[in-house]
Amino acid sequence: MDLSTRLESALAGAVLLGQRSPAGAEAVPQRLAAALGHATMSGGARIRPTILLSVALACGDDRPALSDAAAVALELIHCASLVHDDLPAFDNADLRRGKPSVHRAYGEPLAILAGDSLIVLAFEVLARAGTVAPDRALRLVLALAQRTGMPGGICAGQGWESEPTVNLAAYHRAKTGALFVAATQLGAISAGQEPEPWEELGARIGEAFQVADDLKDALLTAEETGKPAGQDAAHGRPNAVALMGVQGAVRHLKDILGGAIASIPSCPGEARLAGLVRAYAEKMTPVDLGAQATSRVAAAK
Amino acid sequence: MDLSTRLESALAGAVLLGQRSPAGAEAVPQRLAAALGHATMSGGARIRPTILLSVALACGDDRPALSDAAAVALELIHCASLVHDDLPAFDNADLRRGKPSVHRAYGEPLAILAGDSLIVLAFEVLARAGTVAPDRALRLVLALAQRTGMPGGICAGQGWESEPTVNLAAYHRAKTGALFVAATQLGAISAGQEPEPWEELGARIGEAFQVADDLKDALLTAEETGKPAGQDAAHGRPNAVALMGVQGAVRHLKDILGGAIASIPSCPGEARLAGLVRAYAEKMTPVDLGAQATSRVAAAK
Repeated sequence: MDLSTRLESALAGAVLLGQRSPAGAEAVPQRLAAALGHATMSGGARIRPTILLSVALACGDDRPALSDAAAVALELIHCASLVHDDLPAFDNADLRRGKPSVHRAYGEPLAILAGDSLIVLAFEVLARAGTVAPDRALRLVLALAQRTGMPGGICAGQGWESEPTVNLAAYHRAKTGALFVAATQLGAISAGQEPEPWEELGARIGEAFQVADDLKDALLTAEETGKPAGQDAAHGRPNAVALMGVQGAVRHLKDILGGAIASIPSCPGEARLAGLVRAYAEKMTPVDLGAQATSRVAAAK
Repeated sequence: MDLSTRLESALAGAVLLGQRSPAGAEAVPQRLAAALGHATMSGGARIRPTILLSVALACGDDRPALSDAAAVALELIHCASLVHDDLPAFDNADLRRGKPSVHRAYGEPLAILAGDSLIVLAFEVLARAGTVAPDRALRLVLALAQRTGMPGGICAGQGWESEPTVNLAAYHRAKTGALFVAATQLGAISAGQEPEPWEELGARIGEAFQVADDLKDALLTAEETGKPAGQDAAHGRPNAVALMGVQGAVRHLKDILGGAIASIPSCPGEARLAGLVRAYAEKMTPVDLGAQATSRVAAAK
């Protein structure tokens, strides 16, 4: 089974767990159940859980049911964060992955509850799979919680946007970096390895992803990305393009990815993992994005 | 140390965990950190965690650090649910426990994030304390998640309010009952006991609490309860007072609490626990509430 099939199948199983009661459909609020499906099964690149499974495989993946659960839990947290970030109180986004955002499709109350339920489901999935290795499962719960909540997870990252003065390094580390560090560290923990040596790889992939996202937000249209464009400039958010220009940001992105590859800890699947990061690097910085960028900036002048 | 001191001290420690970074205060979004404190340390009866610790004690409480963590986790989930329930998309409540609700004090974005962070912190607290007994800790994570999320937890309970037709039994079981069942079951799990025999006690206390809450909402003023009054009638929510009248609801409440006491499983601390439920019963149905009710209803006629 390839990684994508493995992941989608595990994710679909977990979402069903949140949608179906042993007592039957009449015991479940069906619109909230549908909102959970909308939030998780409407496409998505699944980058974080793919990195997680790739690291687990590179480390031997001796407990595949546990690494599947970790990958699913991480993606559920990511989907929850998108649902809440899209709310009117934050980005007020009508679109996500080319479809109506959850609050547009189901209303604000169900969007808030869908996000809450997905966070909870992430930990439930870890607890269910964890019986094969309770020690590892508890470490997964702890690592995922630390990268999700306060004071250092994605909740903290979003929280910085309500501060009068922002610690930019802490902001980026928490807002985007946290779930990439979770990806590499949970992959290692699932396979029985120590998480610390894997932090740098996750942090660097996170940085690269942030720069790539800044480039896309500045350069692509809503049709091309499936979500509203120009949000950073519209909300006055600090971003790499404003800081170093388009070509500077593209060069910076390549440097970070080089560092990411260099940081991969010694492990059985090291070479394969380096290849995967390289492939992401090419996907994140397509030649035509650079070219497109230059011509649009020129046209705008 | 009495239960209340034990609980408040454990809770305060957990909240600090979410507010302080080893990297220092400048690495933490301070307003979100303050919102976490506001949401958890502004008073509150701590009924659910007190029941949890009482059950753990009745079962021998051989892992007090674990039962403390379970009690804290349960209260954090309860506080998170209050923060989100107060949001404009739900009750739009200005007051909670006689103080401004979190979104009134810190704005809607931080209220959403505070709720999210408290949910995550609950599971982090269980994972941290769980190293002394990983099997039990994982069962606590699972039981807490099931009573919090979808399809049967408090998220599901709130979700029923967005359905065109409501399964009333499932609605009450999930909305109010779930965290009381969590209280008795997590107490038992913390002390190494099976949770199933403890479900009925939690469910009955939850039912009693719901009826008592309906009575308070119908009969007391905002000043007396510290939150907006008459919300059930205002939102057309099904409630015991509308269904069976004030005196009928008071009688029903007493019957439920009698059943709760009868359901307590055989355990070393059975008699003491029965005494505690009896004390709650008296607290929930003060003689003057019944009298007050009758005179107000008479005056309104």
